[in-house]
Amino acid sequence: RIASFTKLGLELVPPPNFSLVWKGVYRSSFPKADHFEHLKSLGLRSILTLVPEEYPEANIIFMKENGIKHHQISMPGNKEPFVKIPPQAIKAALGVVLNRHNHPILIHCNKGKHRTGCVVGCLRKLQTWALSSIFQEYRDHADPKARLLDEQFIDLFDERSLVRLARQENW
Amino acid sequence: RIASFTKLGLELVPPPNFSLVWKGVYRSSFPKADHFEHLKSLGLRSILTLVPEEYPEANIIFMKENGIKHHQISMPGNKEPFVKIPPQAIKAALGVVLNRHNHPILIHCNKGKHRTGCVVGCLRKLQTWALSSIFQEYRDHADPKARLLDEQFIDLFDERSLVRLARQENW
Repeated sequence: RIASFTKLGLELVPPPNFSLVWKGVYRSSFPKADHFEHLKSLGLRSILTLVPEEYPEANIIFMKENGIKHHQISMPGNKEPFVKIPPQAIKAALGVVLNRHNHPILIHCNKGKHRTGCVVGCLRKLQTWALSSIFQEYRDHADPKARLLDEQFIDLFDERSLVRLARQENW
Repeated sequence: RIASFTKLGLELVPPPNFSLVWKGVYRSSFPKADHFEHLKSLGLRSILTLVPEEYPEANIIFMKENGIKHHQISMPGNKEPFVKIPPQAIKAALGVVLNRHNHPILIHCNKGKHRTGCVVGCLRKLQTWALSSIFQEYRDHADPKARLLDEQFIDLFDERSLVRLARQENW
């Protein structure tokens, strides 16, 4: 009788800062074993990792077991005064995200705030979102750690070289 | 030459508190004329409005022009000490959201915080998300106005009568 009250047995735990970016594109903080069951339910085809560190073995096994392809693009976060995401890194990351053959895809860094926020912000430019809306979304995910430098990076990012790919892929 | 620097002509403005809940399900605050262009880009089939007030004429015209069906379910927000979302209202709202014939659908109230947050929170229970994750998502959208009463409402909501419909609709 008690068992019937446990109902559905809630158990899916998305990684912190998880959300949907667009059809087939998810974002989050660094996924750990607790979150694998939820990630499984998304039917991911790929994971895009934006940090340089070697991927944990548990995550590698999880991806192998579920046929998930791993893209790792090492990207330093924007930090005063001298560290800036290199243009080729952001372009490579967007190339992976725009390509619908990689969907459903999860984009993550460590906290899902800064590097992930920059990739998503630049993606929104390709979706022709207004900058005020892009910054609002960035802050919603990064607060209280939002960085002006990240907003400047998104603002100044020149998306023109990716427009053709985006249109080809129906963005 | 200056024109080439305006690039894509950013212009899409999602309503505040806009985000994707799941494939085909969006949430936001009350959409106004500024946001119609963005809503158009979503190819909405329906809008679920959770406030009792008569819908503005501009919104009605927008929906008509774009073949969007309107579902309005008047729902009072949970407020101490005596106001509570009635069970039949939350069930009716979830019935609309679960039904994939209504997708893509936008769920909104006024701020996209409380009533919308309760509907999404109950939907997450049907998706078997852990309560801690459901509350985190609720707060991400409602802070700094998160209401314990809403979390209690989600916690105590008995989703069993909707499980069959959810499974039929592949949730």
